[in-house]
Amino acid sequence: MDVFLPKGTRDFLPDAMRNRLAVIDRLRAVFARFGFEPLETPAFERIETLTGKYGEEGDKLIYRILERGEGGREGKADLALRYDLTVPLARVVAMNRDLRLPFKRYQIQPVWRADRPQKGRFREFWQCDVDIVGTTSPVAEAECLAVVATSLEALGFREYTVRLNDRRILSSLAAAAGATRETDVIVAIDKLDKIGRDGVAEELRRKGLTDEGIARLWARLDVPADQEGALAALDAGLDERGREGVATLRRVLEAAAGLGVPLQRIKVDPTLARGLDYYTGPVFETEVVEPKVGSISGGGRYDRLIGMFLGQDVPSVGVSLGLERIITVMEELGMLPGAATTADVLVTVFDDATRGASLAVTSKLRAAGVKTDLFLGDGKLKNQLKYANARAYPWVVVIGPEEAAAGTVSLKSLKTGEQASVSVDDAIVRLRSASPA
Amino acid sequence: MDVFLPKGTRDFLPDAMRNRLAVIDRLRAVFARFGFEPLETPAFERIETLTGKYGEEGDKLIYRILERGEGGREGKADLALRYDLTVPLARVVAMNRDLRLPFKRYQIQPVWRADRPQKGRFREFWQCDVDIVGTTSPVAEAECLAVVATSLEALGFREYTVRLNDRRILSSLAAAAGATRETDVIVAIDKLDKIGRDGVAEELRRKGLTDEGIARLWARLDVPADQEGALAALDAGLDERGREGVATLRRVLEAAAGLGVPLQRIKVDPTLARGLDYYTGPVFETEVVEPKVGSISGGGRYDRLIGMFLGQDVPSVGVSLGLERIITVMEELGMLPGAATTADVLVTVFDDATRGASLAVTSKLRAAGVKTDLFLGDGKLKNQLKYANARAYPWVVVIGPEEAAAGTVSLKSLKTGEQASVSVDDAIVRLRSASPA
Repeated sequence: MDVFLPKGTRDFLPDAMRNRLAVIDRLRAVFARFGFEPLETPAFERIETLTGKYGEEGDKLIYRILERGEGGREGKADLALRYDLTVPLARVVAMNRDLRLPFKRYQIQPVWRADRPQKGRFREFWQCDVDIVGTTSPVAEAECLAVVATSLEALGFREYTVRLNDRRILSSLAAAAGATRETDVIVAIDKLDKIGRDGVAEELRRKGLTDEGIARLWARLDVPADQEGALAALDAGLDERGREGVATLRRVLEAAAGLGVPLQRIKVDPTLARGLDYYTGPVFETEVVEPKVGSISGGGRYDRLIGMFLGQDVPSVGVSLGLERIITVMEELGMLPGAATTADVLVTVFDDATRGASLAVTSKLRAAGVKTDLFLGDGKLKNQLKYANARAYPWVVVIGPEEAAAGTVSLKSLKTGEQASVSVDDAIVRLRSASPA
Repeated sequence: MDVFLPKGTRDFLPDAMRNRLAVIDRLRAVFARFGFEPLETPAFERIETLTGKYGEEGDKLIYRILERGEGGREGKADLALRYDLTVPLARVVAMNRDLRLPFKRYQIQPVWRADRPQKGRFREFWQCDVDIVGTTSPVAEAECLAVVATSLEALGFREYTVRLNDRRILSSLAAAAGATRETDVIVAIDKLDKIGRDGVAEELRRKGLTDEGIARLWARLDVPADQEGALAALDAGLDERGREGVATLRRVLEAAAGLGVPLQRIKVDPTLARGLDYYTGPVFETEVVEPKVGSISGGGRYDRLIGMFLGQDVPSVGVSLGLERIITVMEELGMLPGAATTADVLVTVFDDATRGASLAVTSKLRAAGVKTDLFLGDGKLKNQLKYANARAYPWVVVIGPEEAAAGTVSLKSLKTGEQASVSVDDAIVRLRSASPA
């Protein structure tokens, strides 16, 4: 019988898993150091919790699950797989009114979207979200920028750029360009990277903007490369709402600098739109220079989403790290720790008479914290060494009749071929000092 | 708008999550020490991969997902949520023929079953599975017993019992009792804990067993409490197949002793059946004495399941730890580490003029590895201290105008109320030595 994986899904075999676990562990440690708390929510939600939250196109990508009733009868499709980690957070906030605000949480879980699978895009993928719920302070945005910068540095990233904008700047630009619906302008600008200025202009013309309006838009989008220059230029050309955005960005940048974020990595970029329409203030995205994989992190302030189930605004800001893209980049740049081996040592079994000694040594090594595999197959010592070599174990322990009688082991390095007859305690010392913890 | 969780599912809020992560981290460390490799598979599989693998009743509990085609059209229900971690493992083995056997993998992921929700039974729950694929050696069973014992000890369990049996003993007993279908006897005996001997006898009578046959069954099931006594009694009363089972259990026990498993915890128990019908050899279950929650771990040898997609037997043995039950027991016995606080210290913000100093100190503390929360709300110092108290943070840092000018901080213990004016470096030393890593 042939078996397949569902389209757009992947198994994570041991080598991949070790890398993923190493990355996730480092992220968790950074998030904890920033005082973020862990949260997990169920894989599926009630369908009405999710529909209508991601726009018409998003709704089409939600996987629906058939409910099961008494006796296993299949019912309506009234459950749905988690589409992101933000709507579940809004539900958690609504259901747990005793949560003390500001609530800083992180959440690392898979989400599912019935997107067309393509290179680097999956139907099951992991999000690492960090959000601060319940504060209007621009220091919260700075905390998000700082946690991303620290995370990337903890993973070994040295070259990355943060693009920073504010939705109110975009709204102001849209008004100045004469747009009747500001989302038309935001949606069009969001495609700038993909379709270029000509493409965006064409789309804006279709939406009813005049050539003069579009020219005004380009003029205002052309800002100096340095932060202060860009902010000053925007401040001069925008209405009050836009200037509020500029003032907020100044406070975000000041706080980010205070928190140690390297400001030279941050570029004020009025063309940064971010697709989702729920943002209400600052938005930001992080890109790596090489390889080109798009943004590896993005977020912003969204003051109305989290309170949607409560019927009141709960000001919030958050950022999402894309685990798949981060791992892709780390792979391509050779930044992953590399396949640590499963075990540091294989304890071989010489024959039936010495098996007991091999088991006892295995148990002692493990108790001392040495990652120890025990040979469980059939075969002569030669085959056992092949097994250890194939798995790239650095060491093997051989216990023949002599060693069993003397209570020693023969410890062999598979890298150098060196072999020494030592006590079990000595073997532990050598294995511990040789292998990275 | 009222929002609810789907029936039988749970959110894991920060306190619960911290405990879960602590338990999972310890289990991962033990599994790695035993040379098991991590594996993860997608949340959903193609429906035909899962159906027909869990019996008629099991099939009814599989959640089906509607596939999505071009343009988001909903298609047939040809996907299904993972029901356990064993069938996905069989699929992985079939799809990755280059996996070197024996393949020792662990997998910690949620599974979904549309079971009737009740106390302690959920529709989304986590399994921690440890399996050894591709060996007939009874040392593999011993490895499973050893990894469970070491896991439980690493979590702090001191009182637990392992029940051990072999499916061939049960088959032999069924034949001796005159059953035409041995599964009738296994299914009935599996209910012994729930319905007692009278209930089992009634069920067996309904299945056509004579009173004499049932009496023969009870006679053979009554074995001495000690391992050797039980094995000898069984050996004397069973046919060749049953005696093979007994001989295998002797080898398993010998190897388990060699691996340091405390044999006094293991009870040979011919009434242990285990519900699943795929077991072919030894089976085992672990129970804690208090509180009564049923088994917290169970497994056995299943030589035909893993190869089902390959069309050939792949001898395998595995064991599953029930994360929910383990955590329930640890909670009730007060074994959980207790809600570690999110952060070790809150850095307060005295006023706008000193905010910069507070941000700089926050950044320094975090860089030194101190879990540090920064106050992001509005409010006077008194409110900030309330916030820290409510979260049970052990320390707060206050930086008023004097401290900001002197480059010092005021470090206050919320436990003792003591307060000291110190340099940032001294604060780091104190916070590091006071807080458990």
